[in-house]
Parts: sequence; C-alpha cells; structure tokens
Amino acid sequence: MNIGLIGGTGKEGRGLALRWARAGHRIVIGSRDAARAEASARELSGVAGVEIAGGDNGAAAACEVVAVCVPYAAQAETLAPLRAALAGKIVIDLVVPLAPPQVTRVRIPDGGSAALEAHQALDGAARIVAALHHVSSVHLADLGHAMAGDVLVAGDDAPAKEIVLGLIRELGMRGVDAGPLVNATALEAMTPVLLYMNKKYKRVGLGLRIAGLEDVEA
Amino acid sequence: MNIGLIGGTGKEGRGLALRWARAGHRIVIGSRDAARAEASARELSGVAGVEIAGGDNGAAAACEVVAVCVPYAAQAETLAPLRAALAGKIVIDLVVPLAPPQVTRVRIPDGGSAALEAHQALDGAARIVAALHHVSSVHLADLGHAMAGDVLVAGDDAPAKEIVLGLIRELGMRGVDAGPLVNATALEAMTPVLLYMNKKYKRVGLGLRIAGLEDVEA
Repeated sequence: MNIGLIGGTGKEGRGLALRWARAGHRIVIGSRDAARAEASARELSGVAGVEIAGGDNGAAAACEVVAVCVPYAAQAETLAPLRAALAGKIVIDLVVPLAPPQVTRVRIPDGGSAALEAHQALDGAARIVAALHHVSSVHLADLGHAMAGDVLVAGDDAPAKEIVLGLIRELGMRGVDAGPLVNATALEAMTPVLLYMNKKYKRVGLGLRIAGLEDVEA
Repeated sequence: MNIGLIGGTGKEGRGLALRWARAGHRIVIGSRDAARAEASARELSGVAGVEIAGGDNGAAAACEVVAVCVPYAAQAETLAPLRAALAGKIVIDLVVPLAPPQVTRVRIPDGGSAALEAHQALDGAARIVAALHHVSSVHLADLGHAMAGDVLVAGDDAPAKEIVLGLIRELGMRGVDAGPLVNATALEAMTPVLLYMNKKYKRVGLGLRIAGLEDVEA
C-alpha cells in the first residue's frame, strides 16, 4: 500500500514510517518543507533498510492512505489546500487537541474533536479514521520495543476502519473498534490523562488496554 | 467510615454498598423514596451479612463520604437541595452523561462533564472526586467476581483523591490518579466507547487498564 504521512518529519511520523516500511508498504514522508522531508526520508531509509520517499505534503496526500501527524494548531491550515487531493481517501487522523503548556489537562476543541474538525475541513469528503492517539512516539520509533497498549479506532466508514485496523496490526499493536467518529472525542481526551499519569507515576509512554478482551488477537 | 450513596438503590449503588459494607464501612443507601431505600437496605444487609441502613438522599448526604449514583438527567435536581449538607464533604461522582437511547456515542455536556456540573451545582463547596465510570455494575454486585479494569480518578482536592483511591482498593480494584477534575471529561467520555465495545465484541463489562503500570499495586 502507498502510505503518505502529512507532517511526517515529527516523532510520530518517524515511527510510523519505519514500522510500515518494514511491513512492506511504500511510504512518502510529507512536510511543508519538501527538502526537510527528503532529508528525513534518506535517514529513515537507512534505518529501515528499505527505500522511503520524501516530498511536500501534497506528495504525501497523493497516496492511497494518508496519516495526518501535524500538531493540532497546524491541522486546519495544513488540510485546507489538500481538500481535493484527500477527497475519497482513507485519512488516519492522529491529531490530539493539546493546549500547550497545559498538556496534562483535557481540552475539548470547538468542533468536538480534532478528527471532527478535520472532517469539516475536508468538506466531509475524506474517509476519516481517528486512531493512534495513545501511542508513545518514543516506543514506536524503537523497532525493538514491543507495544503494550491497544490502539482505539473511531470512524464512520466501516471498510476504511477495517483497513486501518489491519495497518495497526502491522505496527505490532492490537486495534480495537471504538465506534463512530464522534467517539474520537473520548480517544483524544485520554491523551492528556495519559500524559498526566506519565508525570505522576514517572513513566514514559503509558497506554490504554481494554480489560476483558484478552482473547481477541491483534 | 460512614459512606452515603445518593440514588443508591440502582445497580451501581447495590455493588458499592455490598463491597464497602463487607470492607467494614457503615453504609447509608439514599433514595428520593426513603421506603424504597429502606427495603433495598434490608435486602442488601442479608446479602452482605452486615447491617446496611436506608433513608432519603438527605440521610445519605449526612455521611462523611458521599457517592452520587443517580442518572445524569437527575443529577442537577438531586444535588440542588443537598448543597448545604454536602459543603466540605468528599463527594464521589460516578455520573456519566449518557444520552439514551444512543448510549454508545460520546456526548459532552454543556458544563464540560457531569463532574464539573456537579461542582457548579454544589457552588464549588464539595470536595468532588470523579471515579468509577467504567465499572460494570453487574460485576461489582457479584462479590465473587474479580474486577479486571482500573479505576481512573480525577479531582482537584489531593487529600480527598487519596481517600477515594483507598476506598477503591477496598472494592477490589486498582485506582489510578487521572489528574485534575477537568480530566473527568475524558473518563466520562470513555464509558460510551466501552458500551460500544461491549456490543461490538459481545461482552459484558469491558473496562480500561493502564498499560505500563503493571508493577503499581492496587
């Protein structure tokens, strides 16, 4: 599969690119700054041992599946010019509406969630799936690290959600269907709670696990 | 400790009363209908093997620690007349702002969360701790059932939160500090997600577990 990572030069994009490239997908790292994405792609190609491409966010948006990895504050302006390119595409929204510096306090954005705002910004034409809000970018980029938490996945397009659940399995994690896109509000809101717990219990990358689903495979 | 359960004749109240009574606490089940609470208390006293009292919600509110177990739609009107009685008290808010019949879709109430609305309804004078949103009332009332999930606890009053964490341990569960009261929004919003998963995966009482805290004891 061709997978594009919008804002893919950050920490989340790095881990996703490495793990999906190793699983056999063709990756395009996108950035506002194409030269930066190309440099990042060259470096990650070396780590992954397979070719990873880089370009502007438009190049990433041209892929079959597109993951949005930008900070919340940049989401609306990043997506606006990509409306046509993303129409009909499976768009994985990882964005969490954190309000720095208070990243351990829940903040619900005006649109209900970052994912619902992305849906609006793309005129409802993309197949948005919200996921990967609770994944430690540090652990994700460490290919030797076994991921402990589940990935909760919300979306209104059932076939798109199934494809994303498969891609999550290839990251080495268990995906769990969390319901319609409106439920992304809950998933996004759990990130500041986990960041609070990291601080309180002196951990890195605490995650969520659904208790009672132990027999369900990744 | 004296623990009062406002709206304690429902399923959640039943399990809390049984487990806390067995742990040695003095329980007062409260209801709008005192006769109904007294009948419920008599029945539960037999099950628990210790005396459980019943009365109106005012009798429950007179206890040292008070748990609010009413449905969301009844919270504001139930708390209003109890303002004076609850001033300075530790109030455990279990209320989840579900929107029946769509209980598997997240809905954020106007006040941000049921717990923040309770804080407002009580003029900011109670020591509110939001907790126990993800506990299956079926499993809780079954004294033989080992509880699998964690209990996430949010509140602005640190000593009150510590006392509630202790009470949760006595229910047979692990309590985890989830941060300030504003984070109750996330905890409440996860309940419709878990209800969705129960339906999707054909389970009863799925819960949440924090991954990466396995070495932290209940």
